[in-house]
Amino acid sequence: MINTKNLSRNKPIGVFDSGVGGLTVFKEIKKVLPGEDIIYLGDTARLPYGNKSRKTIIRFTIENILFLLKKKVKLIIIACNTSSSLALDYIKKIFSLPIIGVIEPAVKKAVEVSLNKKIGVIGTKSTIESKIYERLILKKEKKAKVYSLSCPLFVPLVEEGFVKGRITQMIIRFYLKKLKGKIDTLILGCTHYPLLKKEISSYLKEVKLIDSANSVAEEVRILLENLNLLNNKKKPVYRFYVSDDPQGFFKTAKFFLKDRIEREQVYLADV
Amino acid sequence: MINTKNLSRNKPIGVFDSGVGGLTVFKEIKKVLPGEDIIYLGDTARLPYGNKSRKTIIRFTIENILFLLKKKVKLIIIACNTSSSLALDYIKKIFSLPIIGVIEPAVKKAVEVSLNKKIGVIGTKSTIESKIYERLILKKEKKAKVYSLSCPLFVPLVEEGFVKGRITQMIIRFYLKKLKGKIDTLILGCTHYPLLKKEISSYLKEVKLIDSANSVAEEVRILLENLNLLNNKKKPVYRFYVSDDPQGFFKTAKFFLKDRIEREQVYLADV
Repeated sequence: MINTKNLSRNKPIGVFDSGVGGLTVFKEIKKVLPGEDIIYLGDTARLPYGNKSRKTIIRFTIENILFLLKKKVKLIIIACNTSSSLALDYIKKIFSLPIIGVIEPAVKKAVEVSLNKKIGVIGTKSTIESKIYERLILKKEKKAKVYSLSCPLFVPLVEEGFVKGRITQMIIRFYLKKLKGKIDTLILGCTHYPLLKKEISSYLKEVKLIDSANSVAEEVRILLENLNLLNNKKKPVYRFYVSDDPQGFFKTAKFFLKDRIEREQVYLADV
Repeated sequence: MINTKNLSRNKPIGVFDSGVGGLTVFKEIKKVLPGEDIIYLGDTARLPYGNKSRKTIIRFTIENILFLLKKKVKLIIIACNTSSSLALDYIKKIFSLPIIGVIEPAVKKAVEVSLNKKIGVIGTKSTIESKIYERLILKKEKKAKVYSLSCPLFVPLVEEGFVKGRITQMIIRFYLKKLKGKIDTLILGCTHYPLLKKEISSYLKEVKLIDSANSVAEEVRILLENLNLLNNKKKPVYRFYVSDDPQGFFKTAKFFLKDRIEREQVYLADV
């Protein structure tokens, strides 16, 4: 149950992810909600989440939320697909502030844009095994046919900068050949995958690719408006916390953000 | 300083790794020291270690050692190359029981078998950046020429079962072409890499591949003998602890161990 009693429009929005991938979500929030302070938490000491069990993901998610609560955020966005898939339902019962995941916004958009309602979903092993995308798509559109597929090599590929070229193309083909010719819409169910968009598109021609970053930002905007919590600061503050060395994050952040962040904006988090 | 006062030959040997890779070491220990109880700890909730910072690796290593100390082990083997590279020196100053890493035994063997003393080392980013292999090789053999190279995609490849085939061959060539024709010996400086031995050998023909598992077991045997701590149990006990879901470990363990372990041997560890 959401309880807005102690929330104030001047408080920052909290965003967390297992690492740097969620910066694609941060970037959209910043664009759609330019008057908001944002605190970003990347659990870089324990990443990746994608192959880990539900119990462990729930534990990490609770610890991340408690960290952000100490920073007095007014709303939390779980930018990590794995964490949204495995922990969001559980977490919502515990905490009273608004918490938004990345699954529902992507599902909503996919069902909207798909013409034949044959929808593919790719994600980490844990996300796909949770079957949450399938469940939510079928809830919205009973006649949909959902093809789910985990692509566990995509995250390390992106993290190592292999976003194009022969090796990347071969691995994309290896996984996605099972979807070829079967779908008209594909949900990129992991914050790393948008960086492979170009190569995925050139293999799955004419398939619409959905990533949740933009839809999430839009949902957050509407929610804050409804709760009367929208902020309009002239000079919003962005702060980044990571559980591993801030130095390492500083370097990879640039790659995801395509924008500079300052060394002084990155702090160590003890989650 | 090693202090054997409170150690007893009847106590188990402790082995830890970031995950399942160290089972290649466990297997050799079991073979070379068939009378010893062994406790294996895999920090599967926080794996992999290979891209993480020295500070974080030291913290994880201390926590793992404290866990094994509670199990009253008489000696600890750090089966993880990253942890051995970044934390062993520091750790040895804190704890008084014997702690063995995987770096020195591999270096010793490589210097022995190399004819031209042109030695390659491959490992995770953190291992290679630590420059420890280089330093130890040159300490043993001043005239050696060392070629160090991180291969960050090898661990996810192995974990996803890509130990042969076109994609694996291409990634091996991508990294190792820099070593082709330059070395006669290559240290596989990560417990996952021995599973790629066949494909690496077929690309780097006539290069001797060194993995530390066997040499470590041999070193442990000699040390226990010297300290008068060798055990000769008829029916030794093997127990496995993991920080993520034991179920997941149970499955992948078979792949690394090429041997069955029983469900009742695997427990949850709260490191």
